[in-house]
Amino acid sequence: MKQEDLGRFVGYWLPQLEEELRAILHSPEEAVAGHYGMMHYHMGWVDEHFQPYAAPAGKRLRPILCLLACAEVGGDPSQALPAAAGIEILHNFSLIHDDVEDGDETRRHRPTVWKLWGIPQAINVGDAMFALAFAGVQRLSRRGVPAGQVLAALDLFTQTCLALTEGQHLDIDFEQREQVTVADYLRMIQGKTAALIRASVQIGALLGGASPAQQEALGRFGQALGLAFQIQDDILGIWGDPAVTGKAAGNDILRRKKSLPLLHGLNSPAVGAQLQALFADAPTEEQVPIAMELLAQAGSRAYAVEQVAHHHGQARQALEEGLGRSVQGSVLWQLAETLLHRDA
Amino acid sequence: MKQEDLGRFVGYWLPQLEEELRAILHSPEEAVAGHYGMMHYHMGWVDEHFQPYAAPAGKRLRPILCLLACAEVGGDPSQALPAAAGIEILHNFSLIHDDVEDGDETRRHRPTVWKLWGIPQAINVGDAMFALAFAGVQRLSRRGVPAGQVLAALDLFTQTCLALTEGQHLDIDFEQREQVTVADYLRMIQGKTAALIRASVQIGALLGGASPAQQEALGRFGQALGLAFQIQDDILGIWGDPAVTGKAAGNDILRRKKSLPLLHGLNSPAVGAQLQALFADAPTEEQVPIAMELLAQAGSRAYAVEQVAHHHGQARQALEEGLGRSVQGSVLWQLAETLLHRDA
Repeated sequence: MKQEDLGRFVGYWLPQLEEELRAILHSPEEAVAGHYGMMHYHMGWVDEHFQPYAAPAGKRLRPILCLLACAEVGGDPSQALPAAAGIEILHNFSLIHDDVEDGDETRRHRPTVWKLWGIPQAINVGDAMFALAFAGVQRLSRRGVPAGQVLAALDLFTQTCLALTEGQHLDIDFEQREQVTVADYLRMIQGKTAALIRASVQIGALLGGASPAQQEALGRFGQALGLAFQIQDDILGIWGDPAVTGKAAGNDILRRKKSLPLLHGLNSPAVGAQLQALFADAPTEEQVPIAMELLAQAGSRAYAVEQVAHHHGQARQALEEGLGRSVQGSVLWQLAETLLHRDA
Repeated sequence: MKQEDLGRFVGYWLPQLEEELRAILHSPEEAVAGHYGMMHYHMGWVDEHFQPYAAPAGKRLRPILCLLACAEVGGDPSQALPAAAGIEILHNFSLIHDDVEDGDETRRHRPTVWKLWGIPQAINVGDAMFALAFAGVQRLSRRGVPAGQVLAALDLFTQTCLALTEGQHLDIDFEQREQVTVADYLRMIQGKTAALIRASVQIGALLGGASPAQQEALGRFGQALGLAFQIQDDILGIWGDPAVTGKAAGNDILRRKKSLPLLHGLNSPAVGAQLQALFADAPTEEQVPIAMELLAQAGSRAYAVEQVAHHHGQARQALEEGLGRSVQGSVLWQLAETLLHRDA
C-alpha cells in the first residue's frame, strides 16, 4: 500500500467497522433496551435518553491497526472486521470499568456511564460489553475464517484481556504504594496499554495469513508502538500545550499521576526527596512550576523522550522484520508516525 | 448410570475439576501475585493473607451438571472438564461483581473481595476471572475436542454471559421500580439463574456427542431446573426454617427482596395495597408475621409451590425427550430431585 492511502483506507473501512459494531451491540428485546441503551450511549451513538446523537466517537485506533495489519500482509480486511470490532468493544468495556474504578465523572466531554446510571449498572453493562467483545471475535466464523484460525485469534484475545486486568491491577495498586520504580511502571503499561495494541496488530496479521514468525514480529511492533504511545501520552500530560490538549498545564502533576516522567523524578537521587515532599499533599497550581523545575533538574523529560525514541526504533525494526522489507511506504508505519508525532 | 452413582460420580470428578480450576487460575508471575491471590481467596483456597486455607467451597453444582450431562449422553466427562471449570469460574466472577453491585459484605461466612481489597480491585479481579472463564473453555482444544465443537461451546458460553448480564440488569432495575410483575420477574431469573444452569447441561451434552435435538431438549431441562431451583430458593427465603437455612425467619421480607412470592402478593388485588404500605419502609421483625399472614391470604406461597411443580414437570419431560427414555435411574434426574427437595 502507498503512503497516501492511509486516509483512503480509513475512509473506506471506518463505516463498515461502525456497521459491524452496531450489529454486535444490537438490542435484542424491549425488556432490556436500557441495558443496550447504555452501551450505545458509551459508544457515542445516542444521548442519555437513548435518542440518536452524534457524539465525538473514539479514534478507533485499535481496530484500524487490526485491519491495516491484515491488509499489509496481503489479506482481505473484511475477513478481519469482526475481530476489529471485538477489539474496539473490549477497549470500550475497559473504559467503562476504568471510569468506575478511577471515579472519573466525564469521558469525551460527557458524563460517564456510572455517573448517569450508577455504579451497579455500569459494572454490569461493562460485563455485557466484555461478553459482546468475544461475540464479535466469534463472528469471524460467519466470514468463512476456518475454525482453527478463529480459535487462535480467540486465544490471543483472551490472553490480552487478562493482561489488561494485570496492568489495571498494578495501576490501582501503585496509588496506594509508597515506592514505585520505573521498571514497575513499564510492567504496568505493558498490560494496560501495550497488550491490546499488540493484539490488534497480531490478530490482524494472523487473519491476513501471515506466517507465525511474521505474526510474532508484527506483535512486537504493536507492543513497542503501544509503549511509545503511552510514554508520549505521559509527556503530553505534563508538558503538553494546554491550548492543544484541552487540559491544564502540568495536569498530571496536579493529579499526582504516577506517570513515567514523575516516577523517574521521584526515584532520582538528586531531587527525589524534594519531589516526594511536594507530592505529600495534592500540589497547588502555584507548585506546578516548582515541580517542573525539579523534573528538569532530574532529566526526567529527557529520559521519557529517550524512552519514546527507543521504543519507536524497536517498533520500526520489528515492522521491517514482519513485513520483510523497508517500512518506507508502509501504511502501518505511517499510522505509527502519526501517533508518535502528535501534540494532543 | 445407576442412581447410587451420583455420590461416586461426584467423588471421582470433583478432585479433577478442582485441579483443572487451579491450573486455569494459576498465578503466572510474582508481580501480579496479589491479583491471582484475590481469585484464590474467593475460590476458598487461601485466606486473606494468601496462605493456604480450606474454606467451605461452593457446591460446584454447575460444573457437575455439565460433566453429568456429558456422561449421560455417552460421552467421556474428561473431555468436558475444561468447559465445566470455565462455567464454575464464570459463576464465581459473577458473584464477585454481584457482591459489589449489591453491597454485600460477606459470602460463605467470609468478607467479600471488595470488602477486603476495595471496589476498584474487586471489579478488576472479576474481569480477570471473566477472561479466565473463556480461557477455560478454550482449553477444550488441548483435550482433542475438534475446533468446530469448541467454537460451538464458546458461542453458547458467550450468549450465556450476555444473558447473565441481562438478568442482572433487570434485577438492579427492579430495586428502583415501583411496579414489577411476576412476568418481569420470570424474565429476570431466566437470565440471572436459569441461563447458566441451562448452558451447563447443554454444553455437557454437546461435548458428549449428543445430537442437536438432544442438546436442545437437555438445554430445556437445564432451563426448567434453573427456574424451579430459583423459585424454591425464594420460598426458602421466606418460609425456610431458620435453624436449617442459618438466616432469620422471613429473611427476604426483612430485606424487601422482590422475590416471586412477594411480587405475587404485592400484585394481588386482595392484599397488594396493604403489603405495599408495609414495604414502604423497611419492615421490622414484628411486622414479619403480618406480612406472612397477608401472603397467606393472597395464596402467594401456594402459587410459588405450584410454579416449582410446573417447572419440575417441564424439567422431567425435557429430560425424557433428551435421553430418549424414562428418567428413572438417570443420575441427572437424581441430582435435580436433590436440588428441589432441599430445605436450605
